[in-house]
Amino acid sequence: MTYCVAMRLEQGMIFAADSRTNAGVDHIATFRKLHRFEVDGERLVVIMSAGNLATTQSVLSLLRQRARDAAPKHILNVPSLYDIAELVGGILREVIDRDAGQRQSGVDFGSSFLVGGQIRGEAPRLFHVYPAGNFIEATVDTPYFQIGESKYGKPIIDRVVDFRLPLEQAMKCALISFDSTIRSNLSVGLPLDAMLYDADSFDGSRHYNIDEHHAFYRELREAWSDGLRDTFRSLPPLRL
Amino acid sequence: MTYCVAMRLEQGMIFAADSRTNAGVDHIATFRKLHRFEVDGERLVVIMSAGNLATTQSVLSLLRQRARDAAPKHILNVPSLYDIAELVGGILREVIDRDAGQRQSGVDFGSSFLVGGQIRGEAPRLFHVYPAGNFIEATVDTPYFQIGESKYGKPIIDRVVDFRLPLEQAMKCALISFDSTIRSNLSVGLPLDAMLYDADSFDGSRHYNIDEHHAFYRELREAWSDGLRDTFRSLPPLRL
Repeated sequence: MTYCVAMRLEQGMIFAADSRTNAGVDHIATFRKLHRFEVDGERLVVIMSAGNLATTQSVLSLLRQRARDAAPKHILNVPSLYDIAELVGGILREVIDRDAGQRQSGVDFGSSFLVGGQIRGEAPRLFHVYPAGNFIEATVDTPYFQIGESKYGKPIIDRVVDFRLPLEQAMKCALISFDSTIRSNLSVGLPLDAMLYDADSFDGSRHYNIDEHHAFYRELREAWSDGLRDTFRSLPPLRL
Repeated sequence: MTYCVAMRLEQGMIFAADSRTNAGVDHIATFRKLHRFEVDGERLVVIMSAGNLATTQSVLSLLRQRARDAAPKHILNVPSLYDIAELVGGILREVIDRDAGQRQSGVDFGSSFLVGGQIRGEAPRLFHVYPAGNFIEATVDTPYFQIGESKYGKPIIDRVVDFRLPLEQAMKCALISFDSTIRSNLSVGLPLDAMLYDADSFDGSRHYNIDEHHAFYRELREAWSDGLRDTFRSLPPLRL
């Protein structure tokens, strides 16, 4: 599995993804799931993927290939992020139609994508593209999306995140959400890809790799664990 | 959906279940999922269920009916809790074979059960009966099982619970696990059924109903929420 989370907040956006891909627990590998597409000062697009690896890789390869081949509509020339979400959904359908046509087994070819970023002239936007190729957009009331193994890490986000949360705080919350997921589920694992995007900066350089030796991630995990345990110990005595 | 959790700890056991049943979000109803079977001073058995309501109700009806009709082997006379888990698994298969034989739709008839308690002569034991009717037993290393919508509430249990945790602490942890689940998932809802069982007591009277007006549950939720937020605020500043 995979776990990815993206948030569109007042100050900008954050993105985080793990890098574990598995088919069963024996066949584990590391693949990046956070992909950046940039045109200097004009557009910055981040795509994160969960689901069938063959499908997600094909979608990303076709997105890149068509931009290189200057297809009429591609990820680097369509005028809005909405159009990019539509593009991703369309290519996803195309890939699934192609591969599922030869279906020989009960394999699930489905994939989900988070498509976020900013194109000059628009505010930052964030879309969740479903396996069917349709998509929804994040709003002020629902400023974040998750894909993949999302349930373990949802409660902490639900408790902490709102649209006005500063980016750095939001990233800490995302990292805690990953830590909770990784502790409870074997199929999500380090290293993490983490990216902060400041609105209107068109700058993708705040992009970090977090592995098990990352000092701050370790410190954060410990501080959170200790805080939770302290909070738990100081709860009022049970009265039922 | 449903969420149920049971723990088998040094001091005894705890059980907790929500009571929401739904088919889609329109058809919501309240059904108890924690069922007690007792023989004074001799056996106390708790069964909690998740999954298809028709299947779980049939399994429980047949368990009761066969005890009443004094079938050769029933829940009140088999000599061990292992035998009860086997009984539940067997009846589950029987019900699914019966109902799925007439399958007219893509409905999932599957159900899972947690079967716990104590029979005189044995220590308290806890089993997880899978939809296929086979089952596993909780151990000192894995002292708890969840069924139903279990992922949201798993991280807090993974962080806090071990075999030596006192019962009252374990129940607080279970209630927090429910609160996290209820906040993040519409299909799990109050009231909760909560039960503490002291080892060797054969006493099922510490069984409580917790609804939205329950003073301690409200206090616990607030204390936990406040504690989490305080912990979050006092985390070290982001350094990536």
